Amino acid sequence: MRYEEFTIEGRNAVMEAFRSGKTIDKLFVLDGCHDGPVNSITREARKNDTIINYVSKERLDNMSKTGKHQGVIAYAAAYEYAEVSDILVNAREKGEAPFVFILDNIEDPHNLGAIIRTANLAGAHGVIIPKRRAVGLTATVARTSAGALNYTPVAKVTNISATIEELKKEGMWFVCADMGGETMYNLNLKGSIGLVIGNEGEGVSRLVREKCDYIASIPMKGDIDSLNASVAAGVLAYEIVRQRMM
Amino acid sequence: MRYEEFTIEGRNAVMEAFRSGKTIDKLFVLDGCHDGPVNSITREARKNDTIINYVSKERLDNMSKTGKHQGVIAYAAAYEYAEVSDILVNAREKGEAPFVFILDNIEDPHNLGAIIRTANLAGAHGVIIPKRRAVGLTATVARTSAGALNYTPVAKVTNISATIEELKKEGMWFVCADMGGETMYNLNLKGSIGLVIGNEGEGVSRLVREKCDYIASIPMKGDIDSLNASVAAGVLAYEIVRQRMM
Repeated sequence: MRYEEFTIEGRNAVMEAFRSGKTIDKLFVLDGCHDGPVNSITREARKNDTIINYVSKERLDNMSKTGKHQGVIAYAAAYEYAEVSDILVNAREKGEAPFVFILDNIEDPHNLGAIIRTANLAGAHGVIIPKRRAVGLTATVARTSAGALNYTPVAKVTNISATIEELKKEGMWFVCADMGGETMYNLNLKGSIGLVIGNEGEGVSRLVREKCDYIASIPMKGDIDSLNASVAAGVLAYEIVRQRMM
Repeated sequence: MRYEEFTIEGRNAVMEAFRSGKTIDKLFVLDGCHDGPVNSITREARKNDTIINYVSKERLDNMSKTGKHQGVIAYAAAYEYAEVSDILVNAREKGEAPFVFILDNIEDPHNLGAIIRTANLAGAHGVIIPKRRAVGLTATVARTSAGALNYTPVAKVTNISATIEELKKEGMWFVCADMGGETMYNLNLKGSIGLVIGNEGEGVSRLVREKCDYIASIPMKGDIDSLNASVAAGVLAYEIVRQRMM
């Protein structure tokens, strides 16, 4: 189990967690409690977009494991990020050509969770996400991944383009999902492959797209513009699965 | 735009909405209010599987646009449901063999919206959902469908199994997504086809499954059980697209 959510109780502990940059998914505060320390904590919470729930003393007492919550309990994510090298080791240990998902700024935690779930079931060896802007591994992501976060390593990198360059040196090649590319059924998607999925609204960023060897398009037979990002990732990932199984 | 959600306020207006057969997605009732007219309304709501929320006067006042809610506010879907026959006409007009999605109790509005979006882009002629238990066409569904609700007809039926039987008489055949079936790549998925997608947790119900001609399985190469319902629908739908394009 690489993921677990844990509770942090008490004013100093919660304040310290915010200060250290830990990801606090949810904060529970005693309803009606507005003294100085509590106000400082809720201010930090707002700054970090943490969800704040004002609850009764009974509720806090029930949630508390230490019995010393002092009116504040926080839920923090303790997911351990992997390194890109761990993903390659994962592939090597299975004796398979690397198959990696690269997510260029997925913002919706439900999409991120669903994509990690798909990566696991499509037999990918890991998922790479950017450090900045995109959503990280929150409790929602863990839940939506349906347990996949416990098996599929997720690495966080500073620069997606630079990571693609490094992985190319390892013999990998890259395909991104975008409009105006070659229909995916006509591409050879076997071998050591990185599947690049873009942002929900803007797609793959120009810099990342330029690093890709191929642009794969999903046939669009309807009236609207694009599939949901996690559906598109699934459709493309399973075209790769199909070709690998042939 | 065929969809918008609107609120109906006041006892007569809400009762009239139920009587006219309008789809009420949610009903808000003043907590503790149990007089005759209110009881009649909640009885209608239960009969129609409308979700009932008992809320405070403050909440109702905040929600109210007219200031005259009399203790009841309803959220109605103004989406115009299609008939199953409309879906077949849609296929005929395009000169294509019918391709229909049948959703056996999808509960999550995000999944329903994403699946309607996929149905549109995969070139399906319509989506069939059950009247009871499953989620209907709420504002969240419309938003998540990314506009597809304006193009892809959605029909609501009382009994999914009976609808499948009727469509079989029209020459359609049915494939459901489930574990333990034949790998989808090995099935012939061409022709007039109904793709049956099950509930998020329980999959396809036994009765519906028994009506299907084939069970198609998506290859699972990972550690967890199943894909997200909307991703699974997308992967299967695009295997159908691939075979139709061949």
